[in-house]
Amino acid sequence: MHEPLLKYIQNYSATPLTEGDMRMIEEACIFKRFRKRQYFLQEGEVCKYLAFILKGAMRQYSVDEKGTEHIVYLSIENWWAGDRESHTMLTPSRYFIDAWEETDALLITRADSIKLIDSIPALKEASKKMDEKNAFALLNRVNANISLSAEQRYAELEKKYPEFLQRFPQHIIASYLGITKETLSRVRNRAVKK
Amino acid sequence: MHEPLLKYIQNYSATPLTEGDMRMIEEACIFKRFRKRQYFLQEGEVCKYLAFILKGAMRQYSVDEKGTEHIVYLSIENWWAGDRESHTMLTPSRYFIDAWEETDALLITRADSIKLIDSIPALKEASKKMDEKNAFALLNRVNANISLSAEQRYAELEKKYPEFLQRFPQHIIASYLGITKETLSRVRNRAVKK
Repeated sequence: MHEPLLKYIQNYSATPLTEGDMRMIEEACIFKRFRKRQYFLQEGEVCKYLAFILKGAMRQYSVDEKGTEHIVYLSIENWWAGDRESHTMLTPSRYFIDAWEETDALLITRADSIKLIDSIPALKEASKKMDEKNAFALLNRVNANISLSAEQRYAELEKKYPEFLQRFPQHIIASYLGITKETLSRVRNRAVKK
Repeated sequence: MHEPLLKYIQNYSATPLTEGDMRMIEEACIFKRFRKRQYFLQEGEVCKYLAFILKGAMRQYSVDEKGTEHIVYLSIENWWAGDRESHTMLTPSRYFIDAWEETDALLITRADSIKLIDSIPALKEASKKMDEKNAFALLNRVNANISLSAEQRYAELEKKYPEFLQRFPQHIIASYLGITKETLSRVRNRAVKK
């Protein structure tokens, strides 16, 4: 059950995981199955766990005063879900995270992940690289949001995360891109004609 | 000259800097004065240094095919400037960084910062916290871009970084917020009337 997570860590690290490392990781992880639409985190709560997704898909979003959802983050297999700020700083989250499909995940507490990162060199290396990759992707997304047209944003998403377009419906993709459903539909029609 | 940087590291770390640590940091840093509008980084170059700003202000931006600048990042005293993705991955940057005012900065190479972080516990701690803070701020900015109105984005900037509004002209602030100059001007007029 922990294979995908161990493989994921190995992918991000030049240092190999020892048998003992793997056992420690397995012991720290809590398996949880989320029903479709079940919350992993609700606004105002502290994000106690980070979740590594084994199967399924989650979305992280804020809800404005009109009740509209704004998707900041989508995760599928081999991705993490969780509000890192709330998880790290122990502050109430401004986000909701729910399972878009039935989702199997490995959960880990902050205390356990700190302990593991401190004692497993491969995980320390992987964790640093994952954090960096995450920050790079976020800056590029800020840049896309302020500088690219709807067409360009859609094309970039299609290139970088084509699996998102298979897994999530149009209104989720539109929200993730920060455009309206109508604009997305126009963009997609134009892309098909090309 | 290195005082602000040492103070900054101490602010982010519970571990104290030793005399030896401080000497190592001072030896690794290269002082550089940038003229107003001088480039620190140009699109297509690898970002060889990160810059800690002692005095002055820098802006990081992408330029689209029409030649329009899109500001992804603003830095003033006690902030860092640099394209972290290019700096870490040694890839050509998609950004320009220039000095908006005459700017004094301490530059550090990737090799030196890795060496320092590995050998100075206080710096390791500070560096981790800074990276986290940076990632949290970026996710919140993605959220602001897709979920907040121009008014709300301006209000959030005013609350979080009031000094930006003193240091940068309206067209820079508008670009940073991803809105037009005309919209910003309308928002400001309404904010003044309230």
